[in-house]
Amino acid sequence: MAGSPFQTRREKLRVELDRVGLQGALVTDPNHFFYLTGFLPNRHFASFLVMNRERAVAVVPQLGADTTKVAPGSDLFDALPYANLAMADLNRHVDEFAERDRALLEGVSRLGLKGKPLGVDAHHFWRALGALLNLAGEKLIDVGQFLLAQRAIKDAWEQEQLAYTVRLNDVGFAATQATLHPDVTDLQAFGAAWLAMANKLCGIFDLHGEFSGGPEISGQGGRAPFGRVMQEGDILIADIYPVVNGYQADTTRSFVIGQPAAWQSELHLILEEAMARGEAAIRPGLPAAELDRIVRGQVNASAPRGASMFHHCGHGVGVAVGKGAHYPPFIVPHSKDTLAEGMVLTLEPGLYIAGKGGMRLEDNYVVTKDGCRPLGTFPKKLAVCV
Amino acid sequence: MAGSPFQTRREKLRVELDRVGLQGALVTDPNHFFYLTGFLPNRHFASFLVMNRERAVAVVPQLGADTTKVAPGSDLFDALPYANLAMADLNRHVDEFAERDRALLEGVSRLGLKGKPLGVDAHHFWRALGALLNLAGEKLIDVGQFLLAQRAIKDAWEQEQLAYTVRLNDVGFAATQATLHPDVTDLQAFGAAWLAMANKLCGIFDLHGEFSGGPEISGQGGRAPFGRVMQEGDILIADIYPVVNGYQADTTRSFVIGQPAAWQSELHLILEEAMARGEAAIRPGLPAAELDRIVRGQVNASAPRGASMFHHCGHGVGVAVGKGAHYPPFIVPHSKDTLAEGMVLTLEPGLYIAGKGGMRLEDNYVVTKDGCRPLGTFPKKLAVCV
Repeated sequence: MAGSPFQTRREKLRVELDRVGLQGALVTDPNHFFYLTGFLPNRHFASFLVMNRERAVAVVPQLGADTTKVAPGSDLFDALPYANLAMADLNRHVDEFAERDRALLEGVSRLGLKGKPLGVDAHHFWRALGALLNLAGEKLIDVGQFLLAQRAIKDAWEQEQLAYTVRLNDVGFAATQATLHPDVTDLQAFGAAWLAMANKLCGIFDLHGEFSGGPEISGQGGRAPFGRVMQEGDILIADIYPVVNGYQADTTRSFVIGQPAAWQSELHLILEEAMARGEAAIRPGLPAAELDRIVRGQVNASAPRGASMFHHCGHGVGVAVGKGAHYPPFIVPHSKDTLAEGMVLTLEPGLYIAGKGGMRLEDNYVVTKDGCRPLGTFPKKLAVCV
Repeated sequence: MAGSPFQTRREKLRVELDRVGLQGALVTDPNHFFYLTGFLPNRHFASFLVMNRERAVAVVPQLGADTTKVAPGSDLFDALPYANLAMADLNRHVDEFAERDRALLEGVSRLGLKGKPLGVDAHHFWRALGALLNLAGEKLIDVGQFLLAQRAIKDAWEQEQLAYTVRLNDVGFAATQATLHPDVTDLQAFGAAWLAMANKLCGIFDLHGEFSGGPEISGQGGRAPFGRVMQEGDILIADIYPVVNGYQADTTRSFVIGQPAAWQSELHLILEEAMARGEAAIRPGLPAAELDRIVRGQVNASAPRGASMFHHCGHGVGVAVGKGAHYPPFIVPHSKDTLAEGMVLTLEPGLYIAGKGGMRLEDNYVVTKDGCRPLGTFPKKLAVCV
């Protein structure tokens, strides 16, 4: 099993621990935890990863028979499930927080890390844990920034997770196009997209996004669906960002109800051209600000009077089981980021005319050795719903 | 505006601060933040509440024009929005974390709390914040346990939020009953429930739950939907727990496809009787373990051979925008909790026969001065889908 992506990622963290002279780490951020273990953390109960130079232990809530079967690596990955009141023990009193803390101390002790300085994610590691471990401030060294930087570059496994989620969005777009007609509401179309995606996934998932339309709403960039009845000539901006198996994709198509007016077709062609230029430019070493200049420049140069693009040109995507969903590289005019092989980013040119209507086009790209690989397959055209 | 529920809650926290000799607090937990402000925190960007004896400031991500309009109280509730890369500033470089930290320091300074000891939620307040504020450990005093205890008792506003969400579940149950037939999948019925609820809500929301069936699955207590094709005679357990406007309700109905067999009707009658006895017993001062004994005792006394109930009898519900969704009182045999006026709890008797099928009945109740108020209106019967 050497070479499981999770083990490889833990090994990279070990190299960093070695570099800063630490024997172990305690990871608490759900995003980092998932990244390093492949085990989706429960939203309501804390999960921890304890690591030393050789081994790793996950401290996780006991929520079913499978909880302890989380051993995807070969570094003796182990799990310590703690009792809680979701899966109640009927034979004794359970103090959930006390059980959790006990399991964590046991994990730290099992790996010989008791009292030793630890690498922690200082942006998430909470105050009471320092007291629990009886570790003074100077024994808690931040490795969260290292992990954030590591996570900006996606390995092959992560690229495939994101590609899968983008393809799921494409299924949603197809269902949206099949559903949208005059008198259909944004919520109905959103529900149809969700169901088509859930059928493909064989399971439920959280879907969020802008997914509404009409002159006012699309002219402002879109908004979450709320029951608006779509009418002939409306544009609906469907910018959806589901979290599937821990990864958040983020793609957008624009739909017109009925045959598009000339101005609508022309507006979308500008986005397609800007997208194509950005796609052609993506390569390792390209400053994100330069990519923004290429895409935004093309949009601005072709925009008709009254039409503008007021938002970022894109951003990195990745793990989204905790806080944070927008990652480097940030594709904005004053970005200090630089594209690197393995980054996965969105490009999202848009044009909006206040009170009249607007549209956006967005897809996700993997930065490859000498260019990029687009992940979306749904046509990058104005989707006509007749 | 004196008497806004948020202000009243902040005043209670101030009394506690006074009691422990603190001049201010910094709240970071999204659940506490929402509870004290009424402002739904974004999932991906941190929100903070800074309070002194007279005023409160919310430090929140700038995500739209409305961000600063969060003033539901009269204690000079104020907002400091921080720039971030979701709403990119196109005219300058934005370091999101630096902007956030700066806004937080400004809020602390504005309330005259710089360098002063603070009440914090030690189970969430993260390590890097202590360094940012330059506050040594002994200047950070936990008020998280106080807030958790305060939140266990729901005021009238919260009771109404929960009641609304329970009624939304009832709409979902009606749609489920209308949709379920042989050859319909669990995902289709779940999607229909979601859409009916979204139409009522006029918006999207996250819906999770057990929502599947058949002899194996319902016999084990249910599971999340995955595409199972329902068949004549199947039982589907629909245990749904949406988070709507920050509050999580948690109710269950069981559905039978076609006319119920005699054993199915009999099994459900046991649950109805157990539920009725629990409902009749709920009152302030009742030990949760005693409530468990009443409900579970009735289930066990009537259970046919091979049928068992292996889970808790219920738990408190409430705010669920961060970690944690099951709250006191925990209705389990060895619970140390006691019911109090204003608690909102679930009762959820169930009976399961391995390999044959099972069912569960669950609703939410407000503990009133001398009894309880049931929140659900969908019939507490086995729902027949013909």
